[in-house]
Amino acid sequence: MLTIPFKNKDTFLYVEIYEFVKQEITAGNLKYGEKLPSKRSLASHLAVSVNTVDAAYGQLVAEGYLEAIPKRGYFVCQIDTYLLKQKDRTPPPIIKTEKAAAISIDFSPNAIDQRIFPYEAFRKIFKSTFNEYDSSLLNKPDIQGEMELRKALVDLLYRSRGVRCTEEQIIIGSGTDHLLQILGLLWGRNKSVVLENPVYLKAYNIFEKMGNPVISVDIDEKGIQIEPMQAYSNVAVYVTPSHQFPLGMSMPIDRRIRLLNFANQEAGNYIIEDDYDSEFRYNEKPLPSLQSIDNNGKVIYIGTFSKSIAPSFRISYMVLPEALLRAYRETADAISSPVSSLEQKMIGAFIASGIFEKHVNKMRKIYKAKRIVLMNALKQWGRRVKITGENAGHHLLVQLDNGLTEEAMYRRALALGIRVYPVSPYFFHGLPDNYKSMVLLGYGSLTDEQIYTGIGILKEAWDL
Amino acid sequence: MLTIPFKNKDTFLYVEIYEFVKQEITAGNLKYGEKLPSKRSLASHLAVSVNTVDAAYGQLVAEGYLEAIPKRGYFVCQIDTYLLKQKDRTPPPIIKTEKAAAISIDFSPNAIDQRIFPYEAFRKIFKSTFNEYDSSLLNKPDIQGEMELRKALVDLLYRSRGVRCTEEQIIIGSGTDHLLQILGLLWGRNKSVVLENPVYLKAYNIFEKMGNPVISVDIDEKGIQIEPMQAYSNVAVYVTPSHQFPLGMSMPIDRRIRLLNFANQEAGNYIIEDDYDSEFRYNEKPLPSLQSIDNNGKVIYIGTFSKSIAPSFRISYMVLPEALLRAYRETADAISSPVSSLEQKMIGAFIASGIFEKHVNKMRKIYKAKRIVLMNALKQWGRRVKITGENAGHHLLVQLDNGLTEEAMYRRALALGIRVYPVSPYFFHGLPDNYKSMVLLGYGSLTDEQIYTGIGILKEAWDL
Repeated sequence: MLTIPFKNKDTFLYVEIYEFVKQEITAGNLKYGEKLPSKRSLASHLAVSVNTVDAAYGQLVAEGYLEAIPKRGYFVCQIDTYLLKQKDRTPPPIIKTEKAAAISIDFSPNAIDQRIFPYEAFRKIFKSTFNEYDSSLLNKPDIQGEMELRKALVDLLYRSRGVRCTEEQIIIGSGTDHLLQILGLLWGRNKSVVLENPVYLKAYNIFEKMGNPVISVDIDEKGIQIEPMQAYSNVAVYVTPSHQFPLGMSMPIDRRIRLLNFANQEAGNYIIEDDYDSEFRYNEKPLPSLQSIDNNGKVIYIGTFSKSIAPSFRISYMVLPEALLRAYRETADAISSPVSSLEQKMIGAFIASGIFEKHVNKMRKIYKAKRIVLMNALKQWGRRVKITGENAGHHLLVQLDNGLTEEAMYRRALALGIRVYPVSPYFFHGLPDNYKSMVLLGYGSLTDEQIYTGIGILKEAWDL
Repeated sequence: MLTIPFKNKDTFLYVEIYEFVKQEITAGNLKYGEKLPSKRSLASHLAVSVNTVDAAYGQLVAEGYLEAIPKRGYFVCQIDTYLLKQKDRTPPPIIKTEKAAAISIDFSPNAIDQRIFPYEAFRKIFKSTFNEYDSSLLNKPDIQGEMELRKALVDLLYRSRGVRCTEEQIIIGSGTDHLLQILGLLWGRNKSVVLENPVYLKAYNIFEKMGNPVISVDIDEKGIQIEPMQAYSNVAVYVTPSHQFPLGMSMPIDRRIRLLNFANQEAGNYIIEDDYDSEFRYNEKPLPSLQSIDNNGKVIYIGTFSKSIAPSFRISYMVLPEALLRAYRETADAISSPVSSLEQKMIGAFIASGIFEKHVNKMRKIYKAKRIVLMNALKQWGRRVKITGENAGHHLLVQLDNGLTEEAMYRRALALGIRVYPVSPYFFHGLPDNYKSMVLLGYGSLTDEQIYTGIGILKEAWDL
């Protein structure tokens, strides 16, 4: 008969019986086919209730250690106990992820000014959005996105970007990356993708990982060149016409029209317009989107809230031409939406309330002021620097004429605690001569003091 | 000289000048190369300030309609105006998405009981989480997930599932689908995937779309069979051992060990353990996870909050064996996290506070009670029904002996406003004979009354 040492006052008796029998089987003391004492007899032997033994046996049967044979009793199952030997319960050692060098001033092109985030407005919106009376709040989100947000976007995009669409054409995604993945799945691997050279790296990574043939086309001062594309057909052209990333020029109307004409040459051709930071244009009003002058359903429009709200909210949007909606729905059915209903509804309310546009206007003023501070600070470098891409976004580019390599610029700055961002990683076939000695300087998150100090230190670092 | 009819009091003067000149160019009234009046002369002619004209010309230059030639003035650029003809500004007609039939009682296996959601606790957690002093709240989320949540999961998973891991091994995803996509990208297309037959459909959709060879292996009463796998190598085996989806059996210890032994045969073999609803087990405590008895880093453990919190929060988690961490990091760098920082931190706090486990225990009691109601209601069907998979999760399966086809069961129920869920869609090669006349009945979202009514109506519908 089993004798069980009840050690632990805190655990249930049945758990102790269960653990004990399991351990006996694992250790091989109870062998395959062996019959266990009846519930009743074990109960009286251990002076516990039959229910307690019943619970323990039940668990052992559920896990497959015991088999219950009606009218005959409980028997040990055949188990390869080899794997069940006692083992170290302590977790494996933590793998260290490499730490970045101590950076005092980071000219990141992706950072935003967190000091101006509308915390109060967001608290109010959470209060009004998160309530017991909206049951859809707990449902799996609509595959295309919550209707509140899609409706709000239809108006916002028409007002701010001239984009004409219906809610049915809008897909809410968890970032540009996710939306590009959807396009990849939707098209399959026989659609080639033309990318700007230099390009937004993740666009390249995604299409390359999805197995789409990737074609790089150099940009000139007007943006991506059209002639080189003529050699290809059934292509999607990924562009950033409002503010080319990383070089920062905007595509003039004649180039936009030629790009649309290229798309119109063939049914399989499309343009992916990534309008990632069009809200931030400082000298003029935002340039009209490609989608707004497209009469033939050739433009897939993509935007994000990473710059206009915060990168922590993983919400982006895509406007699909109607011709792609069917293919989209067939693809989308296969995969759930990754975007939280609550945050979709919150952002939707944020836009519908008008607070979003007020917030964007406020930020535009603030970033414009930062930009002026940066431009003034750069004057101390004298004529030895060429500045480009300064009319929009959260970053500009500086190019030196003193022959310093990009890598030297990066390393020397880093040595003094300043992070600048090389452009060569964005180029497909190495850095062209006319982009030598060039780096990105982002100013979104920096104070005026940091900008001045940083530019001053860089002057030293780069012998300007 | 241009004469501009200022019509709209509300818009800025410069916008009207800009729009007018743009329209003149588009219409071809101002031709390529034509010189525009100087800013000064146009300003005096229109009786507006020079700055107003300057703003208008600036915008036209930025958009590429005009070229500014120093010392000479502003000239019309060469533009293919063909595309810019006036066009319909009204949005395209809305495409109707087909509406589902009116359903009074839906036995969905995926729905949860929204009445017991801890709204108050969540409001408190939002208040404490969403604050000005946590700047990381606005940053792009850590690619692997926010540390608060990963730490909370390390403890929770060890306590509740015996899973042993460090924060470094945990990846936060936006649903099981997303985590399976990561595995697909991480492995590439030469890793074959073994799926249970029948299977969770989205697992199939994802691997199939990602281009991984998919192998289906039938399950028996203990779960997936091992012998058929022996023919394959370098495979990932996707299983739902706690509660097979859709059939609902749990995998006994001997089958688990044989599965682990299969994985151990080869370096390239892995097991993906989808533990999607292990929190809800009614007759015994949850079965230990495969990961907890794996000594060789062969099990990739996946869980979700869709059932334990709500499907609207798109948060899931994956525990990777250390051998896969490097490959994961190389893949992950290419693609941003789709999961909102705020909700990660909120769920992390929810767990750390202990409220999560209290909530799960409360839900388990409630679903257990629902299940008893359903089992009792089913008694009115008499002996003509076989019930399986009833020990866990939010659904069970009923099988009739009266020869009704699955489709007939579905249609007759639907005709009376009841939705039941066929099993055949989950099978690879058509419905095997032993699963004929079988449907899923989920009870997560239904009241006792709805369950009784629904089962009563189904009795009629199916001539029981």
